[in-house]
Amino acid sequence: MYLAHLNWQQAKRAFAKDDLVAIIPIGSTEQHGPVGPLGTDFLIPDYFAKQIEKRTEVLIVPTVPFGIATHHVEFSGTIDIGFDGLYAVIKGIVDGLSRHGVKKFVFLNGHGGNTPALDKVALEANKKGCLCAQIDWWSLAPMLNPAWKGGHGDGQEVSMIMAIDEGLINKDDLMETKVNHLSDKLKNIHLNAVDFKGATIKVIRSVDKVVNSGGYGGSDSYSANKQWGEDMKVALLDYIVDFVNEFKSVKL
Amino acid sequence: MYLAHLNWQQAKRAFAKDDLVAIIPIGSTEQHGPVGPLGTDFLIPDYFAKQIEKRTEVLIVPTVPFGIATHHVEFSGTIDIGFDGLYAVIKGIVDGLSRHGVKKFVFLNGHGGNTPALDKVALEANKKGCLCAQIDWWSLAPMLNPAWKGGHGDGQEVSMIMAIDEGLINKDDLMETKVNHLSDKLKNIHLNAVDFKGATIKVIRSVDKVVNSGGYGGSDSYSANKQWGEDMKVALLDYIVDFVNEFKSVKL
Amino acid sequence: MYLAHLNWQQAKRAFAKDDLVAIIPIGSTEQHGPVGPLGTDFLIPDYFAKQIEKRTEVLIVPTVPFGIATHHVEFSGTIDIGFDGLYAVIKGIVDGLSRHGVKKFVFLNGHGGNTPALDKVALEANKKGCLCAQIDWWSLAPMLNPAWKGGHGDGQEVSMIMAIDEGLINKDDLMETKVNHLSDKLKNIHLNAVDFKGATIKVIRSVDKVVNSGGYGGSDSYSANKQWGEDMKVALLDYIVDFVNEFKSVKL
Amino acid sequence: MYLAHLNWQQAKRAFAKDDLVAIIPIGSTEQHGPVGPLGTDFLIPDYFAKQIEKRTEVLIVPTVPFGIATHHVEFSGTIDIGFDGLYAVIKGIVDGLSRHGVKKFVFLNGHGGNTPALDKVALEANKKGCLCAQIDWWSLAPMLNPAWKGGHGDGQEVSMIMAIDEGLINKDDLMETKVNHLSDKLKNIHLNAVDFKGATIKVIRSVDKVVNSGGYGGSDSYSANKQWGEDMKVALLDYIVDFVNEFKSVKL
Amino acid sequence: MYLAHLNWQQAKRAFAKDDLVAIIPIGSTEQHGPVGPLGTDFLIPDYFAKQIEKRTEVLIVPTVPFGIATHHVEFSGTIDIGFDGLYAVIKGIVDGLSRHGVKKFVFLNGHGGNTPALDKVALEANKKGCLCAQIDWWSLAPMLNPAWKGGHGDGQEVSMIMAIDEGLINKDDLMETKVNHLSDKLKNIHLNAVDFKGATIKVIRSVDKVVNSGGYGGSDSYSANKQWGEDMKVALLDYIVDFVNEFKSVKL
Amino acid sequence: MYLAHLNWQQAKRAFAKDDLVAIIPIGSTEQHGPVGPLGTDFLIPDYFAKQIEKRTEVLIVPTVPFGIATHHVEFSGTIDIGFDGLYAVIKGIVDGLSRHGVKKFVFLNGHGGNTPALDKVALEANKKGCLCAQIDWWSLAPMLNPAWKGGHGDGQEVSMIMAIDEGLINKDDLMETKVNHLSDKLKNIHLNAVDFKGATIKVIRSVDKVVNSGGYGGSDSYSANKQWGEDMKVALLDYIVDFVNEFKSVKL
Repeated sequence: MYLAHLNWQQAKRAFAKDDLVAIIPIGSTEQHGPVGPLGTDFLIPDYFAKQIEKRTEVLIVPTVPFGIATHHVEFSGTIDIGFDGLYAVIKGIVDGLSRHGVKKFVFLNGHGGNTPALDKVALEANKKGCLCAQIDWWSLAPMLNPAWKGGHGDGQEVSMIMAIDEGLINKDDLMETKVNHLSDKLKNIHLNAVDFKGATIKVIRSVDKVVNSGGYGGSDSYSANKQWGEDMKVALLDYIVDFVNEFKSVKL
Repeated sequence: MYLAHLNWQQAKRAFAKDDLVAIIPIGSTEQHGPVGPLGTDFLIPDYFAKQIEKRTEVLIVPTVPFGIATHHVEFSGTIDIGFDGLYAVIKGIVDGLSRHGVKKFVFLNGHGGNTPALDKVALEANKKGCLCAQIDWWSLAPMLNPAWKGGHGDGQEVSMIMAIDEGLINKDDLMETKVNHLSDKLKNIHLNAVDFKGATIKVIRSVDKVVNSGGYGGSDSYSANKQWGEDMKVALLDYIVDFVNEFKSVKL
Repeated sequence: MYLAHLNWQQAKRAFAKDDLVAIIPIGSTEQHGPVGPLGTDFLIPDYFAKQIEKRTEVLIVPTVPFGIATHHVEFSGTIDIGFDGLYAVIKGIVDGLSRHGVKKFVFLNGHGGNTPALDKVALEANKKGCLCAQIDWWSLAPMLNPAWKGGHGDGQEVSMIMAIDEGLINKDDLMETKVNHLSDKLKNIHLNAVDFKGATIKVIRSVDKVVNSGGYGGSDSYSANKQWGEDMKVALLDYIVDFVNEFKSVKL
Repeated sequence: MYLAHLNWQQAKRAFAKDDLVAIIPIGSTEQHGPVGPLGTDFLIPDYFAKQIEKRTEVLIVPTVPFGIATHHVEFSGTIDIGFDGLYAVIKGIVDGLSRHGVKKFVFLNGHGGNTPALDKVALEANKKGCLCAQIDWWSLAPMLNPAWKGGHGDGQEVSMIMAIDEGLINKDDLMETKVNHLSDKLKNIHLNAVDFKGATIKVIRSVDKVVNSGGYGGSDSYSANKQWGEDMKVALLDYIVDFVNEFKSVKL
Repeated sequence: MYLAHLNWQQAKRAFAKDDLVAIIPIGSTEQHGPVGPLGTDFLIPDYFAKQIEKRTEVLIVPTVPFGIATHHVEFSGTIDIGFDGLYAVIKGIVDGLSRHGVKKFVFLNGHGGNTPALDKVALEANKKGCLCAQIDWWSLAPMLNPAWKGGHGDGQEVSMIMAIDEGLINKDDLMETKVNHLSDKLKNIHLNAVDFKGATIKVIRSVDKVVNSGGYGGSDSYSANKQWGEDMKVALLDYIVDFVNEFKSVKL
Repeated sequence: MYLAHLNWQQAKRAFAKDDLVAIIPIGSTEQHGPVGPLGTDFLIPDYFAKQIEKRTEVLIVPTVPFGIATHHVEFSGTIDIGFDGLYAVIKGIVDGLSRHGVKKFVFLNGHGGNTPALDKVALEANKKGCLCAQIDWWSLAPMLNPAWKGGHGDGQEVSMIMAIDEGLINKDDLMETKVNHLSDKLKNIHLNAVDFKGATIKVIRSVDKVVNSGGYGGSDSYSANKQWGEDMKVALLDYIVDFVNEFKSVKL
């Protein structure tokens, strides 16, 4: 059931169902390393939402293609709507639907940077009697299979895009990632974190100051392959559909 | 050229072209009368953008599916992100792209209520050396053919949806529109305007106080037909493609 | 009845009347072409309000002399309080009066740029049970007589000022308006719109980029004359007084 | 020289003078005790500005009739535009004029509650090279003559209104002011302050919780008389004109 | 009773007492003249709060060490959280405690610049049934003894710091204060005020434009001495404890 | 070196050192389970800062005792200054110090909920040439020793408080924590997360809806003991001092 395809009378009838779950695909338009398309973070949730809709009755909200991408604006093609912008969008969706009876929401999220705004909406909604679950597919994947770890614009994300639409990866643009570590003794292990004596300390820098290619994570973008993407896709979809069905039965 | 499908290196190369025009399809998710789908206002610009892309080289930005819909929130399924929300989104897009060289933007707009936020972004962008054109298809249509007049959720919009995807119109939900005029002598001629002695005065009311069905305009939703939509679609697309080509050649 | 001249006890007694209508004259202080005074947009509503008060019982709120004038700030003497500033002022007026019983408001507006803020207040007020009518005199005039068309700082506005206070027009400053069209094929027909193949497309530019003189509209400022102003003034006042009386009798 | 009466070319020529001082009359529309008109706080600065203009060359900005009146909103007729609203208005004025060359401003203020917003604008303007003086006539009066002390809506303000327009005082509405002290040992000596053992402690309460009549100060509203107003008016005008002339000669 | 030392169950039990008074020590971290420590404005309220707690049952809230210090940011070490920042902090405290039953608050304030934000919170709190008293120790001191007058970073404040912790004053940094008067005829008598013909006019300038040393007031920093501080300290503490006890007994 | 204890001349001299690191202790005042004091989150960073100062030259900024605690406001004694409030405070600190030459900051943070505001400041500061490290002691502890895991108000935090000031723990208030799981199949494993088939999904609820006692984490509050706290304290301090020394030598 696609919200955008219903007229308001159909929506009214649909919202009368107590166990209705609304799926909000949320992403970002931002650089994703040397070959990841700018839309990576919303194309994946958008694809997942369409698949979920085929397997269980849910309400699919139009995909939110822009998010909080301040770290990435030094790279061409990045759009950043900021905390306030994303908060306004998600708040608008949740308030608009809950006003007419929808009480359960799943944020199908493709971008870690969006989390602060999603958390704020979720807490406020809960204080008014709603429930919001947030599914970050890239974090969920290694919980299903530890081999599926990944980071921003690296093998994990690129593989998933390959599984959805291989044509979106232009291999000619592959490049080696060179890391500009904070110092010799404070080596970056993530975009925003350094290792010091075996433990991790957060040090936030603009992405362009850390890596030339924009991509950085547990695996290299060269490592991406379609099969990895397919495997994750199948496992994640099965899991998420099961979760959504379980979530429907939660008593409020 | 779809922004979401480019990687940042492709975007960087594309943005180097002086005459690049970015098309931003912008709409709303809100009630559209008895049978118009909630997504009417963004589905049409989204469709148009895809057609334009086939006929001339442009950059298509991901469609903005939510807008300013405060008048309509009493009807199920309406999402309102408010002035501040829409401003943040459009500002984010224009700032993000112009930072890396894009200077010309076309707002392909499907919802009149969005105008204040679009105007603000356009003026600010112009003061920094950019140009934004705004195309409101429903206003442009009767300039091309006076018979194509229309209003919110009535024959004009419903016909256009029929031309794009006839399956989105559920005729079982058709209903007669009953207008609750402001008074016997102040009859509504639009949702937000009354006639008084042959002239028009703006009096803004929440839509649900004005019409039972949510739709209101120059024509009734019963009058919608696919052919009308097809005729408008063809004429509008020809015109817009011509305009975009002309707009490319404007010197900044 | 002037709000500023009442003490609070008189106000309390006055607000007890069910059909009380509050008139809020609203304008802007901004450039008005070569000879239009900076106060054009508020001096006219201010004058009208005083005349209305002589002919029917209304509550006249102090005139709001500043508005949204971002397009014009490149010209000396322009004051811009922005969307948020004007919204705060008008919201403050409507909330303050409605809290103590006033339910009907007429925005006697002299500046088109103010509309987004007025619309927002009007809709919010309606959702709380109030009614706001907006009268834009320059738009109303050609509805009463098609010959009375006009634009920013041109014959129509200057003529009206002449009818109110001829001394405010300094003819020595008359100058020819030269238009910097967007391109040869995209000729400006308004400050914010171009003609393309017989239809109109909005392209917003800062006013100083469009015209040297700041004034632009359906008629030239050379065409202004006092008689035109007098004719409009008489007809508009008659119409507005009649409207206000009709508006009083609307049932809430 | 009235800003509203100049066209932009006259403004441009006027602003070229190095020693130009802009006078901004600022007030409030709020209850002023049993007989003080709601406009007291702006009618007085408005009157003063007009007199100053006759005696020395200055630029008079349109009077700001609304201010920060949150303490008073429980009384009919009070308008409160809040800190953010007043800040936007005054900031708009100072930024708009200073952008085109005006560097010195006098806030001719009639309402103590406005001070925080005026201070903020003044400091920011100074950091950009401007100077703002603030004249609170009711505080200045007792510095010229200790007998002229006064408070909100009491003898001092009412006398001044009598000297400007006696018809604005409706003596039938005079009433005795009854003070609801904070406690027997914490007696109010101002609206927002109590005496404790001979010293003063600020305790802010909504005005309606402190006095029935809304007026309270160093003198009773019964004590108002036109002569007192005349004496203050003459002395204040002389002083202010002298100050403005001195202020003109300050080197920036 | 220190809020930070209670667990929530202890807090719940404590808040059940009707006459509970919460003391909020509030200051600023900003330059305080040649020898006053940057923390002067919060160290004093912090000290006072600890002494009060020994003498009467009160709830001591954690000290707020930052305030509105925009005037002072040109001097090293100054922190300015602005009006909105301080308002958010104090509002957060008052709302958080009043939600669970605390109704009376004493703002033990060390910095005059904080007043606008404290006033706003106090008024809003009163409209919801709470009472906030504000004690500005430097203003209270000369009400107890006229010899104890003082200004920013001068003898009065430095003496008080000496009485609390003499080691915080580094006499090697003493310097003569040189005032940059507004003009020969407009001599500064405070940081933000000039004398003109025996009366005082507010003219706000950034502090670094007025005095080289940052300190300025009724007395010189050379005049500071520990005994003066001790005398004030004892008298103020006695007075404040008495006031707090009286404040407890006020009926709401 | 304590910022609050320096005068501005000392600050100026201190800030001239290139490798200066400013330590900002940041916490929250909020419920911490049955026996954790409300100040837990700032008392610990405050204590750590004092110890660090003894072992290496740093600038200690006054402790920020309030943070983002919206999840916890249903429990007595919780103060929530929200995202905007905390952002204003931390932004004020970093901007104020960096303006005068300080370029490196360590956020010594005691509360996970503060992270979004700290991240925003850190990124903005980095874009202006500064570096901010964030140390969350409760996350760092299990990186040093996996046995030291903990959650909100449970054994880990309570043990650390015991090591700092045992008197702050009132054992009489110990109570059993009862968890209100989201459903039988969606069991909470953290305050904001449930387990579903071995993986974790975020579902944010107000804390009072999840646990009766407010405390919840990897260990029970009954398990707290002073020795655990001492062990963590010693190891963490050693590590943090080493890190700060390394951070000093980073080239900007």
